[in-house]
Amino acid sequence: MKKAAIIGGTGYGAIELIRLLQTHPKLEVAKVISHSQSGEVLSSIYPHLKNLPEIRLEELDISSLEAEVDVVFLATPAGVAKEIVPELQNKNLQIIDLSGDLRLSSREDYEEWYGKSAAPQETLNQAVYGLSEIYKEEIQSATIISNPGCFPTASLLGLIPALELGNIKPTGIVIDGKTGVSGAGRTPTAATHFSETNDNVSPYKIGKHQHIPEIEQYLSKAVDADVTTILTTHLIPMTRGLICTMYADLNQETTTEEVIKSYQSYYENKPFIRILPEGQFPQTKAVQGSNYCDIGVWVNERSNQLIIAAAIDNLVKGASGQAIQNVNIMNGWEENLGLQAIPMYP
Amino acid sequence: MKKAAIIGGTGYGAIELIRLLQTHPKLEVAKVISHSQSGEVLSSIYPHLKNLPEIRLEELDISSLEAEVDVVFLATPAGVAKEIVPELQNKNLQIIDLSGDLRLSSREDYEEWYGKSAAPQETLNQAVYGLSEIYKEEIQSATIISNPGCFPTASLLGLIPALELGNIKPTGIVIDGKTGVSGAGRTPTAATHFSETNDNVSPYKIGKHQHIPEIEQYLSKAVDADVTTILTTHLIPMTRGLICTMYADLNQETTTEEVIKSYQSYYENKPFIRILPEGQFPQTKAVQGSNYCDIGVWVNERSNQLIIAAAIDNLVKGASGQAIQNVNIMNGWEENLGLQAIPMYP
Amino acid sequence: MKKAAIIGGTGYGAIELIRLLQTHPKLEVAKVISHSQSGEVLSSIYPHLKNLPEIRLEELDISSLEAEVDVVFLATPAGVAKEIVPELQNKNLQIIDLSGDLRLSSREDYEEWYGKSAAPQETLNQAVYGLSEIYKEEIQSATIISNPGCFPTASLLGLIPALELGNIKPTGIVIDGKTGVSGAGRTPTAATHFSETNDNVSPYKIGKHQHIPEIEQYLSKAVDADVTTILTTHLIPMTRGLICTMYADLNQETTTEEVIKSYQSYYENKPFIRILPEGQFPQTKAVQGSNYCDIGVWVNERSNQLIIAAAIDNLVKGASGQAIQNVNIMNGWEENLGLQAIPMYP
Amino acid sequence: MKKAAIIGGTGYGAIELIRLLQTHPKLEVAKVISHSQSGEVLSSIYPHLKNLPEIRLEELDISSLEAEVDVVFLATPAGVAKEIVPELQNKNLQIIDLSGDLRLSSREDYEEWYGKSAAPQETLNQAVYGLSEIYKEEIQSATIISNPGCFPTASLLGLIPALELGNIKPTGIVIDGKTGVSGAGRTPTAATHFSETNDNVSPYKIGKHQHIPEIEQYLSKAVDADVTTILTTHLIPMTRGLICTMYADLNQETTTEEVIKSYQSYYENKPFIRILPEGQFPQTKAVQGSNYCDIGVWVNERSNQLIIAAAIDNLVKGASGQAIQNVNIMNGWEENLGLQAIPMYP
Repeated sequence: MKKAAIIGGTGYGAIELIRLLQTHPKLEVAKVISHSQSGEVLSSIYPHLKNLPEIRLEELDISSLEAEVDVVFLATPAGVAKEIVPELQNKNLQIIDLSGDLRLSSREDYEEWYGKSAAPQETLNQAVYGLSEIYKEEIQSATIISNPGCFPTASLLGLIPALELGNIKPTGIVIDGKTGVSGAGRTPTAATHFSETNDNVSPYKIGKHQHIPEIEQYLSKAVDADVTTILTTHLIPMTRGLICTMYADLNQETTTEEVIKSYQSYYENKPFIRILPEGQFPQTKAVQGSNYCDIGVWVNERSNQLIIAAAIDNLVKGASGQAIQNVNIMNGWEENLGLQAIPMYP
Repeated sequence: MKKAAIIGGTGYGAIELIRLLQTHPKLEVAKVISHSQSGEVLSSIYPHLKNLPEIRLEELDISSLEAEVDVVFLATPAGVAKEIVPELQNKNLQIIDLSGDLRLSSREDYEEWYGKSAAPQETLNQAVYGLSEIYKEEIQSATIISNPGCFPTASLLGLIPALELGNIKPTGIVIDGKTGVSGAGRTPTAATHFSETNDNVSPYKIGKHQHIPEIEQYLSKAVDADVTTILTTHLIPMTRGLICTMYADLNQETTTEEVIKSYQSYYENKPFIRILPEGQFPQTKAVQGSNYCDIGVWVNERSNQLIIAAAIDNLVKGASGQAIQNVNIMNGWEENLGLQAIPMYP
Repeated sequence: MKKAAIIGGTGYGAIELIRLLQTHPKLEVAKVISHSQSGEVLSSIYPHLKNLPEIRLEELDISSLEAEVDVVFLATPAGVAKEIVPELQNKNLQIIDLSGDLRLSSREDYEEWYGKSAAPQETLNQAVYGLSEIYKEEIQSATIISNPGCFPTASLLGLIPALELGNIKPTGIVIDGKTGVSGAGRTPTAATHFSETNDNVSPYKIGKHQHIPEIEQYLSKAVDADVTTILTTHLIPMTRGLICTMYADLNQETTTEEVIKSYQSYYENKPFIRILPEGQFPQTKAVQGSNYCDIGVWVNERSNQLIIAAAIDNLVKGASGQAIQNVNIMNGWEENLGLQAIPMYP
Repeated sequence: MKKAAIIGGTGYGAIELIRLLQTHPKLEVAKVISHSQSGEVLSSIYPHLKNLPEIRLEELDISSLEAEVDVVFLATPAGVAKEIVPELQNKNLQIIDLSGDLRLSSREDYEEWYGKSAAPQETLNQAVYGLSEIYKEEIQSATIISNPGCFPTASLLGLIPALELGNIKPTGIVIDGKTGVSGAGRTPTAATHFSETNDNVSPYKIGKHQHIPEIEQYLSKAVDADVTTILTTHLIPMTRGLICTMYADLNQETTTEEVIKSYQSYYENKPFIRILPEGQFPQTKAVQGSNYCDIGVWVNERSNQLIIAAAIDNLVKGASGQAIQNVNIMNGWEENLGLQAIPMYP
């Protein structure tokens, strides 16, 4: 049984890792680290964890990590992993960072979009982008994984096949994203206040979301050309769930049926990608609590556009589930080990 | 006091007309007609109406309409108004149809998109599209109003200024729509079942929505050129509210500030259009229960696109409120008579 | 046109007063006072107010209040009105306090339940409890109104008839309350965080709610005997709405029909109380946005108990609506002036 | 690996069994039977099941059940199991009925409360009530389990200790229940229509719920005396979750701490019962998706009452989870086999 530590133990990413790892046959949670609430018992913060083996939050201690665990997950806010990972690397630890600190290859981009100084180049060079279905080979030999953001996960899984296969133009791609409120994290703010959020939809970032450079970087990488997109994110009155509806210009005429076939083929043997039949579109509820990404496509002949919809659970495939999927790949285990749960419906 | 009849008295459009007209100083509800539940008291179907003057549902009787009322609202499902309006026209009645039956000028388009035979040409010729802020002049002299659909209201109000002013190209416009569930009406179906809809987002129509020909027709009319769009609609777990996020290619470089100014200017003296300041985007909750349409714009320089977001209450500005606004215009009353209610927040 | 000032201008109570007063023919908002955000324009905090006459928040200035307004509403948190009202009384102002500061006649009770020092006895002596349907006479001659709490409003309106008419025993009364989250106010806290509150029901106060002494005081007053109750409050994932389900032991056998008749008689000519027919029970949505209180009763013969359910909109009849109703009574205006809006459904 | 059949394969009870059994190490789903939709593939009805081994719905065939499975779950509406179970009994099958058909020992009671003729006495005699924590011994030797209703599960687990230990009087017990909408099942009705249910709380059954005779029967059995209760059920705008807040008169003075200790002792070694510390109360979200029942108690000294709150997931501990727990007990397996999932939070 390999042992994992979770740094940033009081956020939703952390407790979702704890939930998912509970039934993992080869990886168990050995340490949960929280600087702000070190010493507390996690179930006093999260009553749903009551009666489970007591988890006492600890301070970060690099040497004990090295000695006691095999895998380190960082479920920390932006700006923290870039400080900690350099201290952990080259120490015989498998490191998975769930934040955005290591996703952008350009340090200038990170500084521009995140407003903080970037991680050291050496760390960025070692980090492999953990989009499991696309970069499986690289992940297999990685020691540091930069786990993708939630909107990028859905967008990239939805767009990369059509781009790589030359179906769509790499310019003018529109990504309209909708997310449940858990994507905003645990800190109470005016934006996540129930009375203001319930029964309300609003775009909260247009053109400025930190996921834009990430999406563009990996779309560009997929076709070895500059890809620009627009991403608008909307907050939806639901707890979990994320769906991106994407619009791209087709390069040539095609049919929905052909595109579906190409997606099925592209994602053959990828246990977590489900391509829906013609006329069916993803629902966030159909993947709730699971690591699935449901994708539906539609050729709009009237405007010669391809519409792609991709739905995930933002906390699972959009964060903690994909992180565990990457650990499975890194260790040569079956990709879906511990992640086979059927979505919770209704 | 002018008198109004409502045909289709048991749907959400009807009860919203009743609610809004209760405080209208010059128009009152005199008759509520429902074929399916004629004879029943409306408050037995809708307990929220208890203790208000009893409304007993009646059968449709054309001659008594002519004799007893001045205004007839049709809040009926598709396919009904096209049968009834021809019998009502030229009878000294002001007719407002809230359904889609009279919106499309081409009878072939209606038959293709609605799957039913269209209204007689004579009726279509007389019908004026009731997009109040755009067609005020035509509405002033109209006797039959075809009240716009909810998605078209938000989309057209959001796009027409930028199109008319030549800011954006008329091709490749993307409209990503999100609506609360009341837009689906009152009949219980699997799609509106709480357990399936709550905590769920899903596109329910991509490329096939009956609002597409309507939106294209009136965008094309605005610029006297063929405009094609794609409309995707998503069901959102909230009761009221509708927001369209729209993406269009800019014709030339411009700034958000300039576009905002042009929108403020275009909609000067339009009491229900609120153009938000730079950096602010509409929220459906901020217009809840009111006839406002909030519009926010953003120039995305990275992709030379204009993003427009327009939010309405689908039952008010998207239906019953706009219908009353049109009656106000038809009668030469102040446009916002009886419609001045501040949105209900939170 | 009488003029009103609102102190505590940035809370939900304040904006609900602004919304309701907008259509009041005899009372208008002249000043909105907020110490914490003085100088700001209210629509910058609440975008739903955009395009309405600009409201600039002011500092509290007692002399200008005296000079410029007739009515002062205090929509302040606990502990504020008890400081301010003494300065306002005896100044030819009609004062309505929406907080709990003046509701308890015993200063010791207030100190015990609210954990603060109480208002001066002189102010408490002058304050009249603003439960409009029960204390209309006293309210008519009052200059200071202590506006009831939301749970007390529903509980007292539901229980007082049965108590006064001798139907039920004054001991062992159980009040099980359910409220939407707007009852918790505007400040973001862990308890009102969307992700923690959505899809969740939990009792948040059992036996300790500050409304208990208030309910007991006025139930006791109604029958001139000591009445004890238990109140449990539950947070419900909805924005507005409050319903109390109450259980009391019957003194003698009776039928539901008889109890309904007695309630209809008791509340005759009370425009905002709606007694539902046998077999129908209140729904919070049926009173949403309105000043109604819907009451349903049921005689449970199996256990010789009377069950009473009373539903209100916690921000309207539970706060701002009742405040305006009281001002109407104080000024000898029709009780429902400006408050006739039909509930917003759905 | 034992094999299970599920009869009534298209309801929420069935798909929840499928979800929970997916990770059960000793029991797998071999047959899913649905008369109404026999021949269809279950994932065409429930897209969340896509990509899982295909489940094709079958007709009921008693002899093939006998030959091919070991366990039969009936997740059927009221009135169906009473016809089918008699045909299945005495056939070397373990039978678990999730409906109410076998719960009441009195056939007259069933006919009175369910409005249908009751199951044969012989079947009722063999059926054991599957309240796992209370009747573990009887369940161990049972071949037919009558799985408890959702409200009874929470009420009985909450009340039985206090009753058995003599803390509370057996009369005048009030049970105020709140349930998410999935408790109403899958069929679309006006009562479960999103637009009518969202943002709404209403009691839907006062004094008439079919769970009342069940609760009274088993409370009476627990103390060998007649116990009467009142149960009111409220529909809450959430998908899953059920909480009962219960009020009972204390027999003697005691403290919250003492009662907590007695509950902890009573439920020692019961893996799914979590007794909360003083001052903490259950939240439905804290047990979401899991088989836990969280219980909080409070001694209200002011009224000498004991308040008990018990929260479950209505589809898990309130139905399918408890059914699997009972199968575990019947087979001498660990009680929590396959049911150890941490609740899904948030």
